[in-house]
Amino acid sequence: MSFLATLNKAWTTTNSMLCVGLDPDLDRLPDGIRRDNNGIEDFCRAIIESTADTACAFKPQIAHFAARGAEVQLERICKLIRESHPNTTLILDAKRGDIGSTAEYYAQEAFDRYGAHAVTVNPYMGTDSIEPFLKRGAAIVLCRTSNLGGSELQNKLIDGVPVYQHIARTAAESWSMMGEVGLVVGATFPGELAEVRAIAPSLPLLVPGVGAQGGDIEATVRAGRDSNGRGMMINSSRAIIYASNGKDFASQARGAALATRDAINAVS
Amino acid sequence: MSFLATLNKAWTTTNSMLCVGLDPDLDRLPDGIRRDNNGIEDFCRAIIESTADTACAFKPQIAHFAARGAEVQLERICKLIRESHPNTTLILDAKRGDIGSTAEYYAQEAFDRYGAHAVTVNPYMGTDSIEPFLKRGAAIVLCRTSNLGGSELQNKLIDGVPVYQHIARTAAESWSMMGEVGLVVGATFPGELAEVRAIAPSLPLLVPGVGAQGGDIEATVRAGRDSNGRGMMINSSRAIIYASNGKDFASQARGAALATRDAINAVS
Repeated sequence: MSFLATLNKAWTTTNSMLCVGLDPDLDRLPDGIRRDNNGIEDFCRAIIESTADTACAFKPQIAHFAARGAEVQLERICKLIRESHPNTTLILDAKRGDIGSTAEYYAQEAFDRYGAHAVTVNPYMGTDSIEPFLKRGAAIVLCRTSNLGGSELQNKLIDGVPVYQHIARTAAESWSMMGEVGLVVGATFPGELAEVRAIAPSLPLLVPGVGAQGGDIEATVRAGRDSNGRGMMINSSRAIIYASNGKDFASQARGAALATRDAINAVS
Repeated sequence: MSFLATLNKAWTTTNSMLCVGLDPDLDRLPDGIRRDNNGIEDFCRAIIESTADTACAFKPQIAHFAARGAEVQLERICKLIRESHPNTTLILDAKRGDIGSTAEYYAQEAFDRYGAHAVTVNPYMGTDSIEPFLKRGAAIVLCRTSNLGGSELQNKLIDGVPVYQHIARTAAESWSMMGEVGLVVGATFPGELAEVRAIAPSLPLLVPGVGAQGGDIEATVRAGRDSNGRGMMINSSRAIIYASNGKDFASQARGAALATRDAINAVS
């Protein structure tokens, strides 16, 4: 089943546009979890089991694993998501980007090794750095990122149009013909999110920046939803996975996930 | 010792601006090498030992290892370069790019886990995605890449100036104040390489695209060298590491590396 079909099923089944970001930080693991790679796996497993029915997607961020040599643990976490939670999607947040043959190796890493439905990719190197991903799975392309420095290049004007809008248009009109494509657009700029939605009415948007990064849920949903009232994977990482640093961390994570899902669904 | 000091020593000691790219492809391993992760390690070790005195840098491309779960082998290859060949530099080709805290994990991966002197990074997300690398080691920023699609965004004009020249200027004037920075500029466009060199007279340039990709060595050296006649890491991967697919692959790789080094040095 394709990413978009799975995502559509997930939106319906879970009644949620929440994406739970798995960014495990050794220094923030809760009480009772060992501070090593297996502890990271135990922590993520508990978060996944407690929140899977509240989220349309899980998004492990690969650097948090790669920095510590925890690839095997990441493989097992991804396998858990794919095998035990078929009503949600798996997005590998890796922001890859390289030329054709190397991009194929990155695609193999994301889709074969980790079993991701979709992987985040960087558009700086152009179409031939993105197409190899689209042949194997879905690519969610960085468009307008939520960090401060994001505006340095992304908001510069080319022929009177900001770079991020050029990327959105290329994704909607060209890359979407090659395979399944989405866009990363931060929640910190709802006006720009609305512009991207206007340019790409039917592309799924991965939206980081709510929760710990402070984006406003109501403005985000109004700006980013599609004509069906769906179309978004609204990511929250730290506000959910570190909702508590005590032994109740998993149930507190579930509470935070449900509250975020409900806040998203409450937007009229 | 800093990356730039090590690179200066390498240019002098090896009398070479050649960078040997380690892009191991299971299907292209020579006769007598096992087609598995340990075979990849054996292959890279033999290439390193036979070419280390001909090259100012080695550049392992991480996707070729990550696609197969060969991180442990990559760790050992990097350790070999750092410990046995102190007159060369180690560049991890990973093209990373993410926001601050995640970039710190990527920096940890590149500099602590793999012991790289420098890592390639992507500028799309701006300064706060690059600064965490500069605090820990050197960052070589994608500027003008050698692939066809590279021109789609990189050659677009912002205020009359191509994107890649904005990146070169920002690197030379701003990022270089934060730490050690270099630029990736493909050999396939010598005119643009010369423009980058004019904008960034003292930054080291990592130049892929000679060898299998067909860039012209003479035009590349004339366009990219600095006022000392150095300043470049001219990468060749496949033309060197796959110079032979027989049991003589290591000696043939050495021959190809020496020929490339000599062709670089012969440019008047």
